[in-house]
Amino acid sequence: MQGQYDKAFQAELRDLMRWRRDVRRFRTDAVEAAVLDRCLSAFMLAPSVGLSEPWRVVSVETPEARAKALANYEASNAEALAGYASDKAKLYAGLKLSGMREAPVHLAVFSDDGTAKGSNLGAQSMPETRAYSVVGAITLFWLAARAEGLGIGWVSILDPVQLTQDLDVPSDWRLIGYLCVGWPETEQKTPELERAGWEKRSPALFVERR
Amino acid sequence: MQGQYDKAFQAELRDLMRWRRDVRRFRTDAVEAAVLDRCLSAFMLAPSVGLSEPWRVVSVETPEARAKALANYEASNAEALAGYASDKAKLYAGLKLSGMREAPVHLAVFSDDGTAKGSNLGAQSMPETRAYSVVGAITLFWLAARAEGLGIGWVSILDPVQLTQDLDVPSDWRLIGYLCVGWPETEQKTPELERAGWEKRSPALFVERR
Repeated sequence: MQGQYDKAFQAELRDLMRWRRDVRRFRTDAVEAAVLDRCLSAFMLAPSVGLSEPWRVVSVETPEARAKALANYEASNAEALAGYASDKAKLYAGLKLSGMREAPVHLAVFSDDGTAKGSNLGAQSMPETRAYSVVGAITLFWLAARAEGLGIGWVSILDPVQLTQDLDVPSDWRLIGYLCVGWPETEQKTPELERAGWEKRSPALFVERR
Repeated sequence: MQGQYDKAFQAELRDLMRWRRDVRRFRTDAVEAAVLDRCLSAFMLAPSVGLSEPWRVVSVETPEARAKALANYEASNAEALAGYASDKAKLYAGLKLSGMREAPVHLAVFSDDGTAKGSNLGAQSMPETRAYSVVGAITLFWLAARAEGLGIGWVSILDPVQLTQDLDVPSDWRLIGYLCVGWPETEQKTPELERAGWEKRSPALFVERR
């Protein structure tokens, strides 16, 4: 029956979530347009506040646009590094935090905070839910991409206002994430930050009660 | 091989995304703790900025806490209704926008914006990425729940500051969403807002190029 899922699927879904990683080490070979389009269509299946579908995707393709995004990342990363002291600074400096130089596909994903779609339903007291709808869509895209073997790296070490200006998008579009997409060099089940000794995952989810 | 997914799984994943709906009509029978825990463990598999794992889950259980949340929703909803005119107001008033009276499980999900975990990596220029990490985790939970037949309804028609105070959580926890969880009355592939004539889904994702 449609809409019914068995134990085997539930286990494979869990496995997919476990293997979905933030990827910063990509091969440089191209991603076929049909594969990318199939993954991107997952955006359309995401929940959105008031059915506002506020996601806006910009494919960053020209050398000029990519150079601006890379310069933005490098400036933001240098500034972030300056905020760490001694051992933490040394560790931070050794991390690879973006695959922008190698990834064949770059997507800047925005929330159209000024959209009339959905007539503001559900967003009057919490307008940030439009941005959250876009994050949900990115998460579905990420899983669909991983199921095809594609890796995604979400770059957030950026000045979002500068990037919005550099990409010449409407001023009420808010940058949610800059996604590098491509074929990963290796498959990993452990986050790169954990392997590098930056941070460890918690062993359990603690739920408080009220 | 682990981490490899075939066409059949990719199609079933797409099917799951298609059947995942925002549910507002629940049966009142309980959700077994083991099923809920299994779904909640999906939080632990979500990506998070700097591996900060900022998600904080509060199970809202006492009649007092639930009454405060319901009163918050009803006040916010009345205020939202007052913002619509004529036909749109009539349509809005007829919508069922929360299953708070029927859903057996209520979860208030927060982002701990003050967490030291992850040492602020990736969040210096975009601190909102902590909230986005929580949204990603909710999205995985939603899919895991739907794969078990459970429905989730995300209530955003709330005063988030009031709810944070009423639930007596730390002041640097930011409300991301209030989730109703339970067994749906019926399975639907079309969003309730579309069936009610509030808004239609777009037929395609438009990707701009730069």
